[in-house]
Amino acid sequence: MNGAESLVRTLVASGVEVCFANPGTSEMHFVAALDRVDGMRAILGLFEGAVTGMADGYGRMAEKPACTLLHLGPGLANGLANLHNARRASTPIVNIVGDHATTHAQYDAPLASDIIGFARPVSAWVQSSPSALTVAADGARAVQAARAAPGQIATLILPADTAWNEAEGEAPPLPVAAPVPVSDEAVYRAVAALRSTKKTTLLIRGAALKERGLRAAGRIAAKTGARLACDTFTARLQRILVGAKPPVSFFAYPGKPSWGLPQGCTIHYLAQAHEDGIQALEALAEALGVDDAPTHIAPLKLPDGTPDKLDQFTIGQVIARHLPDDAIVSDEAATSGLGSALATATARPHDWLSLTGGSIGQGLPVATGAAVAAAGRKVVCLHGDGGAMYTLQALWTQARERLDVTTVVFANRSYAILNIELARVGAGNPGPKALSMLDLHNPELDWTRLASGMGVEASRATTIGEFEAQFASAMLAKGPRLIEVLL
Amino acid sequence: MNGAESLVRTLVASGVEVCFANPGTSEMHFVAALDRVDGMRAILGLFEGAVTGMADGYGRMAEKPACTLLHLGPGLANGLANLHNARRASTPIVNIVGDHATTHAQYDAPLASDIIGFARPVSAWVQSSPSALTVAADGARAVQAARAAPGQIATLILPADTAWNEAEGEAPPLPVAAPVPVSDEAVYRAVAALRSTKKTTLLIRGAALKERGLRAAGRIAAKTGARLACDTFTARLQRILVGAKPPVSFFAYPGKPSWGLPQGCTIHYLAQAHEDGIQALEALAEALGVDDAPTHIAPLKLPDGTPDKLDQFTIGQVIARHLPDDAIVSDEAATSGLGSALATATARPHDWLSLTGGSIGQGLPVATGAAVAAAGRKVVCLHGDGGAMYTLQALWTQARERLDVTTVVFANRSYAILNIELARVGAGNPGPKALSMLDLHNPELDWTRLASGMGVEASRATTIGEFEAQFASAMLAKGPRLIEVLL
Repeated sequence: MNGAESLVRTLVASGVEVCFANPGTSEMHFVAALDRVDGMRAILGLFEGAVTGMADGYGRMAEKPACTLLHLGPGLANGLANLHNARRASTPIVNIVGDHATTHAQYDAPLASDIIGFARPVSAWVQSSPSALTVAADGARAVQAARAAPGQIATLILPADTAWNEAEGEAPPLPVAAPVPVSDEAVYRAVAALRSTKKTTLLIRGAALKERGLRAAGRIAAKTGARLACDTFTARLQRILVGAKPPVSFFAYPGKPSWGLPQGCTIHYLAQAHEDGIQALEALAEALGVDDAPTHIAPLKLPDGTPDKLDQFTIGQVIARHLPDDAIVSDEAATSGLGSALATATARPHDWLSLTGGSIGQGLPVATGAAVAAAGRKVVCLHGDGGAMYTLQALWTQARERLDVTTVVFANRSYAILNIELARVGAGNPGPKALSMLDLHNPELDWTRLASGMGVEASRATTIGEFEAQFASAMLAKGPRLIEVLL
Repeated sequence: MNGAESLVRTLVASGVEVCFANPGTSEMHFVAALDRVDGMRAILGLFEGAVTGMADGYGRMAEKPACTLLHLGPGLANGLANLHNARRASTPIVNIVGDHATTHAQYDAPLASDIIGFARPVSAWVQSSPSALTVAADGARAVQAARAAPGQIATLILPADTAWNEAEGEAPPLPVAAPVPVSDEAVYRAVAALRSTKKTTLLIRGAALKERGLRAAGRIAAKTGARLACDTFTARLQRILVGAKPPVSFFAYPGKPSWGLPQGCTIHYLAQAHEDGIQALEALAEALGVDDAPTHIAPLKLPDGTPDKLDQFTIGQVIARHLPDDAIVSDEAATSGLGSALATATARPHDWLSLTGGSIGQGLPVATGAAVAAAGRKVVCLHGDGGAMYTLQALWTQARERLDVTTVVFANRSYAILNIELARVGAGNPGPKALSMLDLHNPELDWTRLASGMGVEASRATTIGEFEAQFASAMLAKGPRLIEVLL
């Protein structure tokens, strides 16, 4: 068994079942090993930014890491922006980055680069594995690092000779650092804060935004009158109830505060990111003597009636009406997304995956990876046209893997958010050059051609009636679809 | 005048005339300043990998830097792979990377990242400019760094408050480190080597591959019998004569040498990368007593006759026949490129721009940037289908700017080079999973739809006759065109 096979066997033994890949020469032994080892699904992406975004979407839904397979420093570099988003989402990911053979490094061949330098800003754990005898153990450590609460990015660099030289065998899985229970003292401090006369908000992040945590939070809110809030952009929100307030502004603006909390506000940490937020909320509920009955569950209420104009709010109503039970929404609709977020608050239960790190081009790959992780669930991707152009290659993987993803592209032919931001930052009256940097009209993108060019069935909606017919039919069918809505 | 305007004025004063941009909120003051300052053309790209590749193509042809405008760490990250290629090409580029306001950094907002960490592996010079009072001077230093021989990448990080705060004014241009003349001793050593009885090869790189250097080299070769060679992948080769031999192999292979020179070969450096290769070759020619008559100039010889089958060699003949005088070829055809490289060796004089750093997805943006730098010259981009998917967004910029670029996509529906590499690295008999990682048939990409979806007129050729008709008509017309050749 060579080093590559020992690594693949170790990854599988450690629970890694999917490899999102865009390999090159230096990864060929890893690729060949995929056929000799059972249990690792290999999914090809045509660009590394799509590959890493898929791993993010997969990790958010599967709650365990996929691995990526990337071609040296430049391959990793192409995937960094979505790894930035994944880092902000605390998604567990194991990157396998091929490298030149250790004996070849001295020659500074064209593809040589500082891979560790590229990896470090996004990775909690980085290691280059210099020997086939140790690479299995390094792989087990990479998975362990990725799974450490609340979820991290681990990058293992695999020189070609480490992959092709003879290895000893696979390494056993390592124990995972589960979330740490919060202390009784932290719970008592939170109880005291909730019982004080001050207005109180519970700001929730991470795993506690999934069903169990939210049920506990709902009961606490019902008993104490505390407001519930989460970040505007969450890795994964199971929407049985909802609330949001960001603690810091996304950007700074001249003369405006960056810190979103009012003066005089006191912050108590019930649980830190690596601690067990679900246990913390349940302990807090118990300490407050909250009864067990579910509360604050949003009642199902679907929009009715047929709206007549086409805008993001009527689109949101249509989506809310037809979104099936247990759907997953990947949301990068930016300025066009508010309508859907509002209208679906009382829709059938679903998961909502947001753009966590602000780096656009996440929505299509995250939807793709989520569909891999959650077969049998409908995935809906809401995307602005500007951002969708970054990683449109993900559509090809949706077609190749016949994934059940319906993408709605909000075609406003603009980086619309920048028109708002231009005013917010006080950059004055924009001239024609500045405006041209925000405008995508010349030429107009045709998303039906782009999607069908990658094998995804696509249609265009210019009225709300057309949109409803197309979206409803997509919800009843299986497989990839794209609807371009002209706004 | 704010910091952004002082920076734009400084860049223009230092000779930077084009800004390839994909801006966001933190760059809005720079964008607004583009309208208040004459002399900077702003060209929008829909993805940063396209933006940095355009700056590379521009710099290779213009022989001076363009600037890029990128949105924080993730925006830079998306552009890193083509900056890697540009670094290998010694292309001068000034990256302007927006950042959060210095006062906002403490809040670790979603888009915050280690920008310097991302920048360092590709940049010879990196600086974050903390004040509007110094940013103009920093901009002048960035241009100076980029222009230092043989050409470098300089990255200037522009925090939002540095851009919007009041500045003092523009900074004067700084002197540029021109290539250093080689010493008489280096010339004498080369003369001795060329007059020895050993077989001698002149290995040429960089600016010396342009017309003046090649003329001197041709005269030296005629006098001494020395062989002329350059890297396989050159930043820019003016093809009045040609020769190639790489000194190291692109990848390492088990049991094969990485070092391409025969044992017993002695290396003499006539000129280092930062030295004046043209002056060195001319001094060497003079020291050898070579006469001034041009020699070793390839005679014009165009293929005639109509081939009947469609393959890369017949395609190369068609391209050679119709390539107009003074064309620029951006070559990322990979396994399909040899036919064109061979057939055009005696075509009308042209420049040949290669994939210097091995990171695929360079060809389309480099062609785009070259067309910006060299208005009036026909640009032909030869591209494999796999690599073209990485940065296909460059086609939109070609349509928007009405650039005179004809792209030929060699659609073999495969990462064909990896089929060769899989065998070369001895990875054994590939199984179905491994083969699926190299195969792009399922689904088939339709480049006519992808191109027309971005506003570029496109056609498909399935016979050599169709290809000749389409290519010949494209050479006679102006503006962007794409021809998908089904191989």
